[in-house]
Amino acid sequence: MISSPTLATATLKPTYEGDFVLNEVLPLESGEVLVKPTLHYAVYGRLNAAKDNAVLVCHALSGSAEVAEWWPQLFLPGGLLNLERDCVIGINIFGSCYGSTGPSTVDPETGKLYGPTFPLINIRDIVRAQVKLIDSLGIEKLKLAIGASIGGMQVLEWAIQFPERVARAISIGVAPLGAMGLGLNHLQRQAIMLDPAWKGGYYEPDQPPKGGLALARSLGIISYKSVPLFEQRFNRKPNRGGNENPWISTSAGQNGRFDIAGYLDYQGERFISRFDPNSYISLTRTMDIFDPIRAHVSPYEAYSRITAHLTLVGISTDWLFPPEDVRSLAAIIKAAGARCDYREMASVHGHDAFLVEPEQLVKLLTPVFE
Amino acid sequence: MISSPTLATATLKPTYEGDFVLNEVLPLESGEVLVKPTLHYAVYGRLNAAKDNAVLVCHALSGSAEVAEWWPQLFLPGGLLNLERDCVIGINIFGSCYGSTGPSTVDPETGKLYGPTFPLINIRDIVRAQVKLIDSLGIEKLKLAIGASIGGMQVLEWAIQFPERVARAISIGVAPLGAMGLGLNHLQRQAIMLDPAWKGGYYEPDQPPKGGLALARSLGIISYKSVPLFEQRFNRKPNRGGNENPWISTSAGQNGRFDIAGYLDYQGERFISRFDPNSYISLTRTMDIFDPIRAHVSPYEAYSRITAHLTLVGISTDWLFPPEDVRSLAAIIKAAGARCDYREMASVHGHDAFLVEPEQLVKLLTPVFE
Repeated sequence: MISSPTLATATLKPTYEGDFVLNEVLPLESGEVLVKPTLHYAVYGRLNAAKDNAVLVCHALSGSAEVAEWWPQLFLPGGLLNLERDCVIGINIFGSCYGSTGPSTVDPETGKLYGPTFPLINIRDIVRAQVKLIDSLGIEKLKLAIGASIGGMQVLEWAIQFPERVARAISIGVAPLGAMGLGLNHLQRQAIMLDPAWKGGYYEPDQPPKGGLALARSLGIISYKSVPLFEQRFNRKPNRGGNENPWISTSAGQNGRFDIAGYLDYQGERFISRFDPNSYISLTRTMDIFDPIRAHVSPYEAYSRITAHLTLVGISTDWLFPPEDVRSLAAIIKAAGARCDYREMASVHGHDAFLVEPEQLVKLLTPVFE
Repeated sequence: MISSPTLATATLKPTYEGDFVLNEVLPLESGEVLVKPTLHYAVYGRLNAAKDNAVLVCHALSGSAEVAEWWPQLFLPGGLLNLERDCVIGINIFGSCYGSTGPSTVDPETGKLYGPTFPLINIRDIVRAQVKLIDSLGIEKLKLAIGASIGGMQVLEWAIQFPERVARAISIGVAPLGAMGLGLNHLQRQAIMLDPAWKGGYYEPDQPPKGGLALARSLGIISYKSVPLFEQRFNRKPNRGGNENPWISTSAGQNGRFDIAGYLDYQGERFISRFDPNSYISLTRTMDIFDPIRAHVSPYEAYSRITAHLTLVGISTDWLFPPEDVRSLAAIIKAAGARCDYREMASVHGHDAFLVEPEQLVKLLTPVFE
């Protein structure tokens, strides 16, 4: 998702990477359970003696525990993270396909892959398990929890559910998803399920519904980007690869694409090899059902629990999580008496701006730390 | 697409409905030809002796020649059309599946259905054929040409290519499609082609790629509506039909939909029985390639040809054809010396506003006729 970073940090490897197994039956918000689930995690830098230098970086839909792989710029000199000072922890979330328990891992109760039977995961389930991992490392309080998109949802739940465990919290491009976002995510799942290789989710791992996943990803990309970006970059240009002419062919001809179509197809194709369709379904549903006040008596009751210094960041052209929604969430949290400020990132890149223009994000957030 | 109109006009039948066959080989902009193609058309009211009371109403993607079926409100007292005064003509466009030559008709050269071999149709091809039909009726000059979306594209081409044949022209929600719209249309076609029943477009007429067409339509609906409409109407409510609970089920569970998802699925489903997938592909490509200045020396050269009194209408929440794009097109046309005014319809309904709030449209356009 990151455009070829030729950075010193591109080779940054975790100090430690491994699995944390919860030796218990973890109850989930859905009423189901996960039996002895695994959290795969990565640590960059080292915990200090006081264990008060831990930064949790929470990943989004297609991310992983390896924070430096997908957010390398944050480790650059002048970035938010400094490994001389900070111990950075990334934890792969339930439902993903990068090491933690998810649809492509084995259900210990049946001995078979979870596949489509993988239970519905709520952000709160994820955070509850993350706390146990943080406990196991002897960390009482995170110096900072930061994340964007599904990552930012985790940050918010940390701040609400475990106020004593996090000093600063930064959540980027997050609010409960609106109807347009819910609709777009739904159609992405429908695309996967339309693929004949889907087989109700019981596909062989080496025969996944590739076409469906690619189409889902292309549609996802549409939701992560913005109209002005597409206009700037693609406009009505014919596809740059090959000799495609959108004006000449039969109606069903596939060699008459505009540039935007070629780009979307490419983004879909390159996603196939690195993501599992059942995971895609699982994580988009986790995104859909995020609602930090659910099961609380009132928004006030939920948000007044927050003691961390919380910063919400909206992105000007984000239409999946519109900045108005983020701003209004910040106002509600502040009205509940929590320390919460709102900052807006001016970017043409839509929701993806946190990955595409992290320097901008760093600039915007640096004052938070001063 | 129209929300249950309980109108007197709901039973309005054409005075005449029939086929016009062009007894020739019609050259197309793509370089291909249509051999003796048919235009299916409908006439409401009667031509007067001077034949100067003809109004051409051009239909959009899923419309037909039967104007009163999909735009009944325009015929109401106080509407734009008055059958005591006007003779209203609707012509089904090439590529459609409502009577004119399209993918689901027989190619006279092969004796088989066109299917995916149906040539790419440009709006200009459609208008060139329409002029021949209008000729055959003995009409020298249309009193008015009006249409929205693909219909509005036809209106613009009439005004540019045949300036002496149209006195007034109203084009609603139209500009050359931007990158976001091109991308959304492309993914709709990809959805159809992902369906195993697609078979490269050579499906049997009674075994069309239904799932693919439904998904395409759902995605189309997303592009025709708007974020504020979806927020107002669906927000984060669970699906109204049945006992669906988005928060409880497995990840791949289909009985956990939000209301917007149920709505989109419903819109997709109900489209299957009334539209042909190859036609859907054909018409979205026709929409994509619309570019009124293509093959002209300059925008000035194209637009300075216009002699009709032209009105462009933008819709405030339209994100398929953003009002800024329509406004800017109007400015360019005006700068070329043509009589062109721009009006904006304030509506929460997005691109579909012309079908959903026609009363508003009538109100906005009435001054044009005074």
